[in-house]
Amino acid sequence: MKKPLFVGLDVGGSAMKAGVVDDTGKPLGSVSLPTEAHRGQEFGLERMCESIRQAVAASNLTMSDIAAIGVATPGTMDIPAGLILDPPNLKPWRNVPVRDHIHKAFQIPTAFQNDANAAAYGEYWAGAGKDAHSMVLFTLGTGVGGGIIIGDLVLEGEHSHGAEIGHMKIEMTNPLQCGCGRWGCLEAYASATGVVKRAELALAKPHAKSSLEGKKDLTARDIFEASAAGDALANKIAEDTAFYLAVGAMNMMHTIDPDMVVFTGGMIAAGDWFLDLIRKFVKELAFPVPAEKTILCYAQLGTDAGFIGAAGCGRLLYRQK
Amino acid sequence: MKKPLFVGLDVGGSAMKAGVVDDTGKPLGSVSLPTEAHRGQEFGLERMCESIRQAVAASNLTMSDIAAIGVATPGTMDIPAGLILDPPNLKPWRNVPVRDHIHKAFQIPTAFQNDANAAAYGEYWAGAGKDAHSMVLFTLGTGVGGGIIIGDLVLEGEHSHGAEIGHMKIEMTNPLQCGCGRWGCLEAYASATGVVKRAELALAKPHAKSSLEGKKDLTARDIFEASAAGDALANKIAEDTAFYLAVGAMNMMHTIDPDMVVFTGGMIAAGDWFLDLIRKFVKELAFPVPAEKTILCYAQLGTDAGFIGAAGCGRLLYRQK
Repeated sequence: MKKPLFVGLDVGGSAMKAGVVDDTGKPLGSVSLPTEAHRGQEFGLERMCESIRQAVAASNLTMSDIAAIGVATPGTMDIPAGLILDPPNLKPWRNVPVRDHIHKAFQIPTAFQNDANAAAYGEYWAGAGKDAHSMVLFTLGTGVGGGIIIGDLVLEGEHSHGAEIGHMKIEMTNPLQCGCGRWGCLEAYASATGVVKRAELALAKPHAKSSLEGKKDLTARDIFEASAAGDALANKIAEDTAFYLAVGAMNMMHTIDPDMVVFTGGMIAAGDWFLDLIRKFVKELAFPVPAEKTILCYAQLGTDAGFIGAAGCGRLLYRQK
Repeated sequence: MKKPLFVGLDVGGSAMKAGVVDDTGKPLGSVSLPTEAHRGQEFGLERMCESIRQAVAASNLTMSDIAAIGVATPGTMDIPAGLILDPPNLKPWRNVPVRDHIHKAFQIPTAFQNDANAAAYGEYWAGAGKDAHSMVLFTLGTGVGGGIIIGDLVLEGEHSHGAEIGHMKIEMTNPLQCGCGRWGCLEAYASATGVVKRAELALAKPHAKSSLEGKKDLTARDIFEASAAGDALANKIAEDTAFYLAVGAMNMMHTIDPDMVVFTGGMIAAGDWFLDLIRKFVKELAFPVPAEKTILCYAQLGTDAGFIGAAGCGRLLYRQK
């Protein structure tokens, strides 16, 4: 019997990526189109369909070869209803019935998922977590997102807020403000934005000395590069970032206790010394057994994880039938 | 067909409680015997069997009426292996093959579970969480324990450290030390021990004024009673406790996103004003949707939750067969 094939679509604020994958999560072909959310949600829905069609064509297939579709989107959503609600990165979209639209357009079973959950499922199915039974993913970008997979359960939560692990509170006395408006969230410390903010605070101190002084439009990458080049202030910021991520990892190890904690996003370009530092702090922080046994590593699928995981969610739907 | 019956056994540091429950979790009869861990693990294993026999007799049944057994124990353990490892509350027991021993003794399918996980499953199955699909339980005693149930999944974790939610780190700048030796754990703030410690710190400040001053062997109950009687210092300690529990609840709402967060243990004797205060802080701290929709409440089964949940784990095993 021919093995089934799946399409996954990962919708982001600036681009959407669609790809066909086989029954093991291997991509056969993929495309990326600009999202252009400002052109409205009708346009957006049609562009999603177009991405899917193009991905299938790019894989030398026709829609009749596809067993199921999976779509992943960012922002506030109602996962069981297949709805995008009011996503900050997709203005002015509101209450967009993504799943039903795609399903109607193609008449193929369609799954819907949060983008970070989908990325986590992608890594779990076909990437870093391939041999794990359970996995927590931290996505490190402008914000800190996450996904939690236990067996084949994608932890969506009852109100589509599962694995919003960037918004666990890790500081009460002297909390930094988070992009979400709250105080003391992990994201306020360990996101690219948090890294920059902490560097700016350090640079603003009297007698601060750093090669970063006076640098305009400071980025997390600048800071990590300065750290690699031996800048002491930047190095302290980077080390603290590893510590905050270790706190986040440890809190997950004492809650979910997964086989594996995986990090992805721009920050992992920092390389092995950064991962080793997170591991060192986790060993100091966590209970001995999970500290010893939990695997901490970087993701393997890069920005493909989203569409691969979305396709994997389509596959879960297909296999339930 | 006759509905199956189950025995649950909840082993604690000072006493063990066993009971027979029906297929809905309703107790038919139960007994409590002293654990006397100091008499050694052979004695302990025999006492577990004796508790089970007595619970069955107290329910006017014979062992042949029992479809499955569940045993819950505290401390470090290997849940899949059915082993107690090195539990601080059951000295000098070490590497005790609880599940196999009970199974051999009765030749009845036997499940093994962590005590807080079992209590969570008990509340989920037959108590506060009866109508929930998922639930997080906080057990507030000398320490802070917990259990996480999602569907019929008891979140044991891969290394039997799932739901050790008393040991999520919520403070970095000025952390209190926890009973586990770590710093900034929720337990250091919200356990009975943490409540007393914070009160002692407040009382030690110059010009501190409180009816608790000079009181020997201060307990969390003393502090909550003084708070109820209008003592301002005690009231601040109690209010802060509600805040810390709200932080813990919120972190679970942003990770697990359950239908329900349930509190149990001695501290819930504080009554509704304390629960209302936790709810108020959660509304301030959490994302709007989970803040509005997640039910926060007290447990309903008291100290029976452990054996009822253990029996429920036996029932899960029986139903898998």
